[in-house]
Parts: sequence; structure tokens; C-alpha cells
Amino acid sequence: MPEVVAVYPGSFDPVTFGHLDIIERGSRIFPRVVVAILRNPQKRPLLPLARRRQLLRAAVRPWPNVEVDAFSGLLVDYARSRGAGVLVRGLRAVSDFEYEFQMALMNRRLDGSIETVFMMPREDFAYVSSGLVKEVAALGGDISGLVPPAVARALARTLRRGSR
Amino acid sequence: MPEVVAVYPGSFDPVTFGHLDIIERGSRIFPRVVVAILRNPQKRPLLPLARRRQLLRAAVRPWPNVEVDAFSGLLVDYARSRGAGVLVRGLRAVSDFEYEFQMALMNRRLDGSIETVFMMPREDFAYVSSGLVKEVAALGGDISGLVPPAVARALARTLRRGSR
Amino acid sequence: MPEVVAVYPGSFDPVTFGHLDIIERGSRIFPRVVVAILRNPQKRPLLPLARRRQLLRAAVRPWPNVEVDAFSGLLVDYARSRGAGVLVRGLRAVSDFEYEFQMALMNRRLDGSIETVFMMPREDFAYVSSGLVKEVAALGGDISGLVPPAVARALARTLRRGSR
Amino acid sequence: MPEVVAVYPGSFDPVTFGHLDIIERGSRIFPRVVVAILRNPQKRPLLPLARRRQLLRAAVRPWPNVEVDAFSGLLVDYARSRGAGVLVRGLRAVSDFEYEFQMALMNRRLDGSIETVFMMPREDFAYVSSGLVKEVAALGGDISGLVPPAVARALARTLRRGSR
Amino acid sequence: MPEVVAVYPGSFDPVTFGHLDIIERGSRIFPRVVVAILRNPQKRPLLPLARRRQLLRAAVRPWPNVEVDAFSGLLVDYARSRGAGVLVRGLRAVSDFEYEFQMALMNRRLDGSIETVFMMPREDFAYVSSGLVKEVAALGGDISGLVPPAVARALARTLRRGSR
Amino acid sequence: MPEVVAVYPGSFDPVTFGHLDIIERGSRIFPRVVVAILRNPQKRPLLPLARRRQLLRAAVRPWPNVEVDAFSGLLVDYARSRGAGVLVRGLRAVSDFEYEFQMALMNRRLDGSIETVFMMPREDFAYVSSGLVKEVAALGGDISGLVPPAVARALARTLRRGSR
Repeated sequence: MPEVVAVYPGSFDPVTFGHLDIIERGSRIFPRVVVAILRNPQKRPLLPLARRRQLLRAAVRPWPNVEVDAFSGLLVDYARSRGAGVLVRGLRAVSDFEYEFQMALMNRRLDGSIETVFMMPREDFAYVSSGLVKEVAALGGDISGLVPPAVARALARTLRRGSR
Repeated sequence: MPEVVAVYPGSFDPVTFGHLDIIERGSRIFPRVVVAILRNPQKRPLLPLARRRQLLRAAVRPWPNVEVDAFSGLLVDYARSRGAGVLVRGLRAVSDFEYEFQMALMNRRLDGSIETVFMMPREDFAYVSSGLVKEVAALGGDISGLVPPAVARALARTLRRGSR
Repeated sequence: MPEVVAVYPGSFDPVTFGHLDIIERGSRIFPRVVVAILRNPQKRPLLPLARRRQLLRAAVRPWPNVEVDAFSGLLVDYARSRGAGVLVRGLRAVSDFEYEFQMALMNRRLDGSIETVFMMPREDFAYVSSGLVKEVAALGGDISGLVPPAVARALARTLRRGSR
Repeated sequence: MPEVVAVYPGSFDPVTFGHLDIIERGSRIFPRVVVAILRNPQKRPLLPLARRRQLLRAAVRPWPNVEVDAFSGLLVDYARSRGAGVLVRGLRAVSDFEYEFQMALMNRRLDGSIETVFMMPREDFAYVSSGLVKEVAALGGDISGLVPPAVARALARTLRRGSR
Repeated sequence: MPEVVAVYPGSFDPVTFGHLDIIERGSRIFPRVVVAILRNPQKRPLLPLARRRQLLRAAVRPWPNVEVDAFSGLLVDYARSRGAGVLVRGLRAVSDFEYEFQMALMNRRLDGSIETVFMMPREDFAYVSSGLVKEVAALGGDISGLVPPAVARALARTLRRGSR
Repeated sequence: MPEVVAVYPGSFDPVTFGHLDIIERGSRIFPRVVVAILRNPQKRPLLPLARRRQLLRAAVRPWPNVEVDAFSGLLVDYARSRGAGVLVRGLRAVSDFEYEFQMALMNRRLDGSIETVFMMPREDFAYVSSGLVKEVAALGGDISGLVPPAVARALARTLRRGSR
């Protein structure tokens, strides 16, 4: 059996401790994990792609078999180009579950050789999402404990600049 | 990274095409899959353990990295004894999801080094459960297409004997 | 197009205003509705089949296109024997939804010519189930408003006799 | 009992095999089915109304008791104007379920004489939605198998023109 | 034990009978209830804050221990400034439930001394939301029975002015 | 406003840290909390009522406004007899939610003056239930961290005696 490559896709705008928890768990069971940042110009991210990539790279440094990349277009096309046989997704709640299942079934239809596996974050990260982190930060709330310090600083700087 | 062993636990009373679909998917992404039949005397299975093991062994023959075993006691203790780092569970519906999450969080608490991953069966097997298969078979319904022919025959024989 | 016959199956142990609400709604959109009581000796009903049938017959008298019957075996076999093209089920909650979908998909597999449709009871009957009605009645609670008076009397008599 | 007319409302931007599956099932149990395209200028559809109507008309040709129409304003007002006693909705997932129930209860409040019935699409269409089809098509994915060929061509032409 | 103050936050754009039902229930179990209107310029409300406050004040007049206020910024900061130990939220459906839990866990993290309690509206208000009320009103539907008469008049006036 | 008494009902077979978390939260927002053990002979508890009461009494000692009692019959009748205006329930998951709503609506119907409020346990207790604790203990798993030490000892003693 060749080494299985797992792709963990997302917007990571910004990366949270919830994402990093899934990445670490993935890195323990798959030989190679590619964290793949979605380039989606229509979604107008708060942090530019280069910044998100830089923050992710710093955050995944502890795990030698994890790499950070970016992609556009269909996820399954990107996964195939990387030789990946697995897509990793975190599941937190029932609403996640249904959306994720719809996407996983569509991806399976588009490429039956790529399998989606779902992993469960630590329960105290179950309520952490990038959107909620940005909302709390924008209202002046404390987000340490939800994101790495470098991410908190990047958010604070961006929000101060009124870049939103 | 040492070879990851994945345990797929269940009662398999009887094994269905839904189980086999998950086993095949697991065998493609993990180097070794152990299908582990739960010895649970309190649940009073329809098929005895030896029969369930025999049917499973025949059904998994196409996949050389899949093996069939039985266990009693705590699942995490068994997994540790097999050197397994992964538990595989199939997720079909929202109700599955909540029960499975509860079990996965408890197992993580009991042994933090063993990770649960969830996989999605083919959508046309999403409504197939061992319980429903037995119910339909007991009422004389056609269960070919839901279980392998040998399983259908074993069920028919057991039900005829009125062994329930 | 021949006249569509709709079967509304259940245990009706006992019939509640929630059931009757669905039956009335069904009788307005299908030419003929057959309320089909499941004969299920293993479930040990509180009220015997003859009593359940009698109570249902009295309760559906206002709707001339509704009839009461009983069946055993596979529901789709019974429906076919009645020339029914439709199974009617009430949907109250998410947990109903998943169980009902599983049953409907299995029934579709067993007979693709019979269609399941789901109807929604009045919202103030959404929490009424036969099981909860029996529980409340057994503890001496007032169940008028949940079941017809004749059903309340039958329950009271049966519970007094300690027949449970 | 007069002939029951059933309205199946939607945006159909574009019609998918999931919609057509529900329409066919509806046409087997109701004497007359009106597929009613919502004219909703605020939603900015990808395909103009005339195109959606044309594609739907071609797609429902096999079923003689199905007609295609468009409406604006309250759905129950339109249904009443067509003499319809039934609204048909497809139910795929739990999230559908809650939204659909809210709408059905509101519609019942607005006109108690019109009943909503829910039908279940074929399980392999359960993950198909107009939105996901457009997303996949926009990223160059293959959508044959999800929509009729004429719809796939119309989408391709519209997306090429950059009309989105 | 000092008197417990409960904050019931929301946009109230407009207030509905569902909101008022929760407010009345809250006023029966907490010594003091503060209805707190969220000032959120980004959400572009249909009714201006002053109008929403005026309508709410008129509607809560029957309950002497209920007061109306407005806030911006983090809800927990506002609650603390009011000496509130409780946040009250209405729960209608499963989708509510997950969103509300996420918010409650985040609020607990931001201030562990403030407790969120969930209350259940009358079941016939379970499908009433401000958004749906506005949608129905905009299409000319009857919303009496969903909102107080003064709210219905305010909506009608605002919608007539084409202010949306 | 008279002092509000809140009843927190349950089987507590055995009490877990999840229960105690809800009790502590309740004791902070209600002047008086009565923990009410359901006497339900049909459920065949693992621990006898006297033992459950003793363990609960020891566990709630830190909170002076919390008392332990037992009841049989309808919960609302018991609550009324205690002058309670509030029932407290913990909500952990979607499946809890639906069952709890059904019970709360029935209780409201039986006595409209008693209000049910839902509270959320700490997220790391969300997967802890009495049933799962007993199952893990019976299989020899470590349940410290899930229940107080005295409860763990009581369970161990009872299970050793094979009293189940």
C-alpha cells in the first residue's frame, strides 16, 4: 500500500485551535497531511491568502508530516493532483454534519477514489469557528485561548486598520 | 511513522452490505483493518458469535489487509492490545452522529492515544441496519441486495428454526 | 388515473388526537384512506386489537372515505393487497424524521410502486404520542384534550384493572 | 371528492434530477401537478425565468398530468387561484425538515384549506441541490447525472458568458 | 442571594408574539428582566432602533418587572454592566439549538459568571420569526395573530413607503 | 415576587459530575433548588433510592440553597406540592432536546403555571450520562473524573456484588 496523503481543506480565515486540533489528530494517523487553503476571491476573506498561509505554516511547524498549500477550483481535482486518497474534515455539530455529508457525497461522485473521513475536535473547541472568532474580536472580546497568539495579533492589526 | 492499525468494531448480527462498504473504504486508506466482533452476552444476538465470525471472514476475503477478530470488555483496551491507533465508525444519520460522538468522546477520555474516524457509507446503504434487516427477513421480505447471499441463507435458516 | 388508496399504518395503542388530525388531513387529499392497525404480538399492547379497532372506528366515523383495518406481516405486502399506492405517515420531530426516512426507503426498496408521503399534525398535537399518553394516564394525569373521551375511558378502565 | 390539484413550488434555478424525481412521484399520486416557478426578482437567479420555464417544460413532457407555471406573491394565494388543495415539497435532510416545517405551518396559518405533503427523493439525489450544481458547474466539474443534458448545456452557456 | 437580573437580547425587528411569550415567561421566574435591543448597524434593520424600542416598550407594559434597553458591543459586557447573572434565550427548533449552544458556550468562555437559560415558546409560536413575519407582510399576507396590532401597523407603513 | 423554587428531577442512578454541574448553575440563579429523585420501581435502578439520596446529599453539601428529595407520580403534581414554579433540565445534545421538549410541552399542558428552563452543562461533561458511566464501570473502565469518588466506590461495590 502506497503512503496515504490526506488533504485538510478550508478557508482558515483565520486558523483556530479547533483547526489545529484536527490537523494534529490527522498527522497522527496519516503519513502525510496537506493543509489546503481555498483561494476563493468571491468570499472576500478578512486576511489575505499570503497572511493566512504564513500563520498556518508557523502553527503547523511542530508536526513534520504536515505541509501547507493553497488551491482553487474543484477540491477533488486538487486532491488528485497531490496524489491524495483522503479528505479530512472536522465534525462539530449536527448542522456541520449535514453540510459535510452533502459535500462528501458530491465529491465522491466527482471522484470515487478519494475518501472523506470525519474527525472530532476536542470538545472544548467544538464551538470555535473562524466566523465567531472574528465577530468576538471585532467587538473587542478576548480571543486568546481560541487562536494562537500570532493569529490574535494579526486579527487585531487588521481590524484596527478598519480593513473590514 | 509505524503502520497504522484501524479497528472497526460492531455486533455484526448480521453483517450487511453497509458494513462491508465501510470495511472496503477503510481498507483503502489504512494499512491494516481489524473487524472486531463484540462478544456481548447480554444483547442476546440472533446469530451465535462463531457464525457471525465465519460469515464476516468469508465476506472480507477480497481485501487482504482486513482481518476478523472478536473482543469483550472495553473497546479501547482491546484496541490497545492490538496496537491500533484508530477506531473506524460508519455514520449514516443525525441520530447515529450523536450516539457515536458520545461514544467517541468517552473512548478518547479512556485512552487519548486512540483516535475515532467516521466514514460515510454509499448513500443507498444509508438506511440498512442489522436490526431492520432482521425485521424484514422475519416478516418474509426479500433481503438480497442488503446482505451477502450466505448471510441471507444463514438468517433464513435461523429464523425458520424459530430460534428467536 | 385510478383512484388512489392511501394506507395510514400504526399501532394506535391508543389512537390520539394527533393520529386523528393526520387521518382527517389525509381524507381531504386522498380519495380513500385505510387506517391499518399493526397486529404485532411481540409488542404486547395495552389495549387488545379488537378494542383498538372499535375505538378507531368510532373516531373516524365523521369521514366517509376512511376505513379501519388490521394487518400483520410486511406493510408493503398489505398495501399491495389493498391496491394502495400511498403510505401516509405523520412527521412531528427530527427524531421521527430519521426513523421514518429509514422505513420509507426500506419500503420503497421492497416495493417501488408504493410511495410514502409525510404530513404534519397540528402543532399543538406535535408532542402527543401514544406512549406518553399511557404514561400520563398511568400516573393519574388528565389526558382529556389528547384523546377522544371513549379512549380516555378505555384507558382508565384498563389501567384500573392493573392489566399492565 | 373533486380532483385534487397539487402545486410543487420552487426556484428551479436550475431544475435538477432531484426535482424531477419528486415531480414524477407526485404525478403518480395526484391527478394534476402544477410545477410553479417562483418569480423572485430579489434573489437574482442565474437563469432567467423564461429559460427556467422552457427547461422545465421540456423535462416534464413525459408526464401528461404535469404542467409548468410561474407565480409571484404569497404561495397560498397562488395555490388558491389554481384550485390547489396540496403543496408538495421534497425532504432530503434534517435541515430541510425544519425550514420546511416552519414554512408549512405559516402557510397553514395563512390558508388552512391547503395541505403540505412531503415526499422523499431517491437517496442518490438526496445531496443534489440547485446551488451545489451551479457551484460545481462554475468550477468546471461534471454535472451530467445531476441535471438533464439541456440544463447542463444552458448552465455551461450562461457561465461561459460570465453572466454570473 | 441578591436579586437576579435576566437579560433577553435580540434584534426585535420587529418584536413578535413569540418574543413576548418568552418575555412573559421570563418575568414570572426572574425578579427583573431587561429586554436588550442589539444596535447592529451592519444588519440594516427594517425598523429603526427608536421605533423598535417604542414598540417593545408598549408591548411589555403589562409586566412591571420588565424593562427595555439597547446595547452594542459584546453581550456579556452589556450584561455585566447591568448586573445581570442570566441570559434568556428562546429555543424553537433543532437549528436554533445548535446556534444558541455555540453562542452560549462562547459567552460562558467570555464571562463564566453569566449563565444562559433556554425557554420554550408556546408551540403555536414556534414557527414565528421576525424574518418570516417581514416576508409575509411584504407579500401582503395577514400577520395579525403573529405580532401586536401596533407592530403590524408599523410594518405596513414602513413597507408601503418602499423603505426596504 | 415570592421566592422562586426550582425542581431538578432525575433518576440519578448514579449522580454524575454532569448533574452536579447543572445543580451548581441552578443554585446560582434560583433562590432554592430541590433535586428530586424519581421513585420508579419499573426502571429497576442499579442503586437503591436510599443510596442515591445519600450520595446526592453528600454531593450537594457545598450549596446551602440546594436540597434533595424523592417523588413518585406526576412531576408537575410534585412540583406544585413543593411550591415550585420552575423545572430545570440539562440539555446536552439534539436528541436530548427533542425528548425534553416533548416532556416540557406535556408538563406545561398538565400545569401551565410551572415553567421548564433548560441549562447547558460544561462542554466536557456533555457526553457523560448515568447509563454510559455504569456501562464503563461494569467493563472495568476508570470513571473517576465523571462521578464523585463516593459514587465511584458505591458503583464498584454494587457491581462487585453482581447485584445487576
